[in-house]
Amino acid sequence: MTSTALAATLFGPEDLRMVEHPLGKLADGMVRVRFGAGGICGSDMHYFRHARTGDFVVKSPLVLGHEISGEVVEIGGAANLKVGDRVAVNPSRWCGHCVACREGRPNLCENIYFMGSASKTPHMQGGFANYFEAIPAQCVKIPDHVSYQAAALAEPLAVCLHAVARAGNIEGKRGIIFGAGPIGLLTMLAAHRAGMADVTVADIAPAPLAFATRLGASHVENVAGGKEGLKAQAVSRPYDVAFEVSGTAAGLASAIGIVRRGGVVVQIGNLPGGQIPTPSNAVMAKEIDLRGSFRFGFEFMNAVELIADDSVDVLSLVTAERPLSAAPDALRLALDRSQSVKVVLTAN
Amino acid sequence: MTSTALAATLFGPEDLRMVEHPLGKLADGMVRVRFGAGGICGSDMHYFRHARTGDFVVKSPLVLGHEISGEVVEIGGAANLKVGDRVAVNPSRWCGHCVACREGRPNLCENIYFMGSASKTPHMQGGFANYFEAIPAQCVKIPDHVSYQAAALAEPLAVCLHAVARAGNIEGKRGIIFGAGPIGLLTMLAAHRAGMADVTVADIAPAPLAFATRLGASHVENVAGGKEGLKAQAVSRPYDVAFEVSGTAAGLASAIGIVRRGGVVVQIGNLPGGQIPTPSNAVMAKEIDLRGSFRFGFEFMNAVELIADDSVDVLSLVTAERPLSAAPDALRLALDRSQSVKVVLTAN
Amino acid sequence: MTSTALAATLFGPEDLRMVEHPLGKLADGMVRVRFGAGGICGSDMHYFRHARTGDFVVKSPLVLGHEISGEVVEIGGAANLKVGDRVAVNPSRWCGHCVACREGRPNLCENIYFMGSASKTPHMQGGFANYFEAIPAQCVKIPDHVSYQAAALAEPLAVCLHAVARAGNIEGKRGIIFGAGPIGLLTMLAAHRAGMADVTVADIAPAPLAFATRLGASHVENVAGGKEGLKAQAVSRPYDVAFEVSGTAAGLASAIGIVRRGGVVVQIGNLPGGQIPTPSNAVMAKEIDLRGSFRFGFEFMNAVELIADDSVDVLSLVTAERPLSAAPDALRLALDRSQSVKVVLTAN
Amino acid sequence: MTSTALAATLFGPEDLRMVEHPLGKLADGMVRVRFGAGGICGSDMHYFRHARTGDFVVKSPLVLGHEISGEVVEIGGAANLKVGDRVAVNPSRWCGHCVACREGRPNLCENIYFMGSASKTPHMQGGFANYFEAIPAQCVKIPDHVSYQAAALAEPLAVCLHAVARAGNIEGKRGIIFGAGPIGLLTMLAAHRAGMADVTVADIAPAPLAFATRLGASHVENVAGGKEGLKAQAVSRPYDVAFEVSGTAAGLASAIGIVRRGGVVVQIGNLPGGQIPTPSNAVMAKEIDLRGSFRFGFEFMNAVELIADDSVDVLSLVTAERPLSAAPDALRLALDRSQSVKVVLTAN
Repeated sequence: MTSTALAATLFGPEDLRMVEHPLGKLADGMVRVRFGAGGICGSDMHYFRHARTGDFVVKSPLVLGHEISGEVVEIGGAANLKVGDRVAVNPSRWCGHCVACREGRPNLCENIYFMGSASKTPHMQGGFANYFEAIPAQCVKIPDHVSYQAAALAEPLAVCLHAVARAGNIEGKRGIIFGAGPIGLLTMLAAHRAGMADVTVADIAPAPLAFATRLGASHVENVAGGKEGLKAQAVSRPYDVAFEVSGTAAGLASAIGIVRRGGVVVQIGNLPGGQIPTPSNAVMAKEIDLRGSFRFGFEFMNAVELIADDSVDVLSLVTAERPLSAAPDALRLALDRSQSVKVVLTAN
Repeated sequence: MTSTALAATLFGPEDLRMVEHPLGKLADGMVRVRFGAGGICGSDMHYFRHARTGDFVVKSPLVLGHEISGEVVEIGGAANLKVGDRVAVNPSRWCGHCVACREGRPNLCENIYFMGSASKTPHMQGGFANYFEAIPAQCVKIPDHVSYQAAALAEPLAVCLHAVARAGNIEGKRGIIFGAGPIGLLTMLAAHRAGMADVTVADIAPAPLAFATRLGASHVENVAGGKEGLKAQAVSRPYDVAFEVSGTAAGLASAIGIVRRGGVVVQIGNLPGGQIPTPSNAVMAKEIDLRGSFRFGFEFMNAVELIADDSVDVLSLVTAERPLSAAPDALRLALDRSQSVKVVLTAN
Repeated sequence: MTSTALAATLFGPEDLRMVEHPLGKLADGMVRVRFGAGGICGSDMHYFRHARTGDFVVKSPLVLGHEISGEVVEIGGAANLKVGDRVAVNPSRWCGHCVACREGRPNLCENIYFMGSASKTPHMQGGFANYFEAIPAQCVKIPDHVSYQAAALAEPLAVCLHAVARAGNIEGKRGIIFGAGPIGLLTMLAAHRAGMADVTVADIAPAPLAFATRLGASHVENVAGGKEGLKAQAVSRPYDVAFEVSGTAAGLASAIGIVRRGGVVVQIGNLPGGQIPTPSNAVMAKEIDLRGSFRFGFEFMNAVELIADDSVDVLSLVTAERPLSAAPDALRLALDRSQSVKVVLTAN
Repeated sequence: MTSTALAATLFGPEDLRMVEHPLGKLADGMVRVRFGAGGICGSDMHYFRHARTGDFVVKSPLVLGHEISGEVVEIGGAANLKVGDRVAVNPSRWCGHCVACREGRPNLCENIYFMGSASKTPHMQGGFANYFEAIPAQCVKIPDHVSYQAAALAEPLAVCLHAVARAGNIEGKRGIIFGAGPIGLLTMLAAHRAGMADVTVADIAPAPLAFATRLGASHVENVAGGKEGLKAQAVSRPYDVAFEVSGTAAGLASAIGIVRRGGVVVQIGNLPGGQIPTPSNAVMAKEIDLRGSFRFGFEFMNAVELIADDSVDVLSLVTAERPLSAAPDALRLALDRSQSVKVVLTAN
């Protein structure tokens, strides 16, 4: 086996370099994974452009990547895995002991380790590297017929399964999703699977909406010029649930404005920090449930299963594949919404 | 019996007059109630000052009053009541057939009739009148030892019981209430009863905070100069639940800012309409449940019971009583927060 | 209008007679309904055969019938109805004030009036009569295209919607129903609508199972010779939810035995009173939720809507229609399971 | 360190021997714990008397003990623990990947390893041994002021916290517990802490009831002669929740019979397998929620915290301490209900 790894490492805004570093001795209780594939997420793009995402600032070199899969190549100590296992890798390590873990909400774990994130110092290194380490609990085996590309997308699917779970029972309900990027589209697929009767997807750009239509959206709405059409629709039959995925004040305002009295808004989008103009009185006046949705918990395993049994076709979102070694170019490509929905890095 | 009623009728900003009008023939299925007592609510004060509250504008003369009690003096047709019954009067008439009613959320009834409100045209006349009408289902009998003053306060107590119910199971949890007016204080009493272990009350004025202390607040916080002290506290042991009652952007921002990850914010306060600066990203990043709370449903009957068995001492909030005929002066008195917590109108 | 009504009145076991009685003056707040159609329920059959059902004993003449529809012909006082309205009639009158009503569980109302039942003395007379009385809240208008026969079946459909609601979120789950009579079959239709992925119907008689297959059961199982086949199936992919509708100890034992760990059993069937041999240890060892389901609440209105918009084809269960005047013969026919699923009485 | 361990090993009914066995090399990812204290549980007693408990039969020598604490003396590989840590030991190892684990119900884990149990073959050896092994996730550190005896009782307390959680929100409710053994008594303490307003404890023996009174039961009832008195009480103010802990058909029948309509029965007691005479019709007729409660999940950590901050005084149940080496005698003592509530084994 090789004694070095090559990792897509961020040094500053738009300064992503493939850096070689020696592989250390594998600690007991860890496994080493050879990179299979990696999805480029919106937060990777934020890091890439601004060397920060939300409140998390890159202060020292950070290897990106938290949508990853690969092959187990080395095991430190005993593990319920064997060398050669093909796995989807959950970027989360939960402590299992804190209040949040005990409440069954490990996504809110106080001691979480989340790969490819600058939320703690020292930063937690990501998986866009041809070798990386994980604990066995992060590794979920995939059957032979599941590609590494598909397995890498278990992570964003888990985000969307969690968002749908936060909405409660949506069977037979009418929903709208603001934002037709990968998370919006996977939320649409997840909502259909959870029995939502009718799912509208709204965005301000035509290309993603056309994509949403191909993927099976019940309706699409171009809200670039405001949301008058939406309002008319909502009057005729109001929306029970809105998912705000766009990370914009306009998206949140539309979501709050359009759901029915007693409706639910799930907020997944990463809005700017600080004060955002929000029609907050309506939350009271319509007795809305506005529920944040942050990452995912046990839904990661469900996501792998849904992919394995062909229930959700995550590969339908992939618009380009690039080798890991071309990560900087791949990130630039992903940033162009007119061309890209989901860009995936592959081993070669 | 008299053939006319005298009603506190609003014609415009600060233009409240006692107007006499003839009593019509009582329709089948209605009962006539002689005024016992009436609480002055914040929304009465809004109407009084601005001839509007939130989006509801007074377009024709409006009799105020929705916190009311009295004696049944006439019955149109059969009813599970008899002349002479002393009753607390629920200002709400629910249809029982719409989607919200079927979901057990009658406060969101699409066809609701709510006394003393300009939310529909023609306006729904209120109960600050020495005679008014109701349907039998609005009338909840009170035992002899319950005063009309106490019975009139079943309505605001019901608002608070509903807000506490919206918070879910709060047993053993730590909470904070922003706003020490009557609704904030009754929420505090209701939260204590529901098992909340520790209830902090925050406000920007010393008089209401002193009142909160006398009523049993675990802690009070003067947040006039910002919320630094609160933040320090929250770090040492975070708040599980915040109730925003103040109807201010600062209150809502503090509530969102101070609850723990996975915490709950219940929003009862009547914020201005339109766009309010709100730290909305934190709802996602902390996976908060932000839940609107609008009026009340079946909690009205519970409120009457809690008053009747001395479980909640609503009269402890009353700082002044005035006769119904002096309603205009009473409203002016109620507007002065340095002097008044709750002002109650009485029959004479 | 006629001054007398003709009512199917039970005097003792198998002693059902059409009795004429004068129509009294209609009380204020009541409406009079001319019989449109009436479904014969299992409890009508129990009364007919044994002059009792469960613990309720017929002590004085009882008019049967609680699955009923008709036309409003007279109104006492004001009502949100007009003469000529075609209505489905909810047999329940709820008090709206007791603890159960306040909890949103009006089916458990302490003061309930339920038509056609000997559970109180004097008995509450039913609707198998060419004229009967109701309160306006019992009457749900039906559109012109809905027949009285279909409207009469809103009641048993409501029973099944309630049972499905008691099961919680069943979207994507796998279920089994023990008992293929009308309630079992409507539960199957309701479960399909609520998103259950796979519904097996089990019974000990071939005719009802063939009927279940025609109505769309995912699978049927003849469990006359024990439940070995079921066990084999359950091993391969366990059942999440079981509905016990048969009212037999064997059905309940099978339901408890076959659901997975953490599964749900909804018990609707009317078992004999007293001690029933039950594999009760499994409730603990598998941490089952065993939930009783009794009649229905607000689901009655939902049932009318589902019938009105053709979402559930209740008429597909009807195997015979007979005129109200032939009620005794119709009950005998209904008792023969090899011939009958649902027998409906009509006006002429 | 010693190279052998001495373990209380069961060979057959009443045949418990202290057996010496060599300590093997500690596997990577495991820790070795020196016995601190161990509580004797009802299932230990069942194994001791009958070499079986419920359906689990002892087929080869079984070391008993799953209520245990001790000191970490050796660590295989890395762990979030250090030699010398004093720990309460959770007997459960959860896989974290199965359907039950993902649903947040790890007590129902399909792959659970549970110490001191014959439910799988080979049997899972228990902790009544002066040295035993665990994974780090089982070990919850305890502060210095918590004794090993108290820490050993975190396990039964967790069982009771889970049972109380299964009851839902019990704040202000009225409850009854059938069975005044250690689990019944800890359930009483846990229910008080969860805000239950009034807790009655029922049993057929005077000694445990006297003990319940000393521990703070609101009421005690001797139901040796039937449950007439209980019925009278239930009429005056019905029970909302019943906990069946006795493991008897009479206890379950009483629990079902005594709760109000819409009430909750939590079934913790280990009834005999097979068919138990049960008043099952009442589950439907009263729309009861009958909920099994099996072991515990994340409540183990909560239990340790409640013990550490003196919220629940588990030591108040201890009626005798015996050295581990006297385990056979200690089990005989525990079987005598007139003398013993909880017997605890200690290191020396």
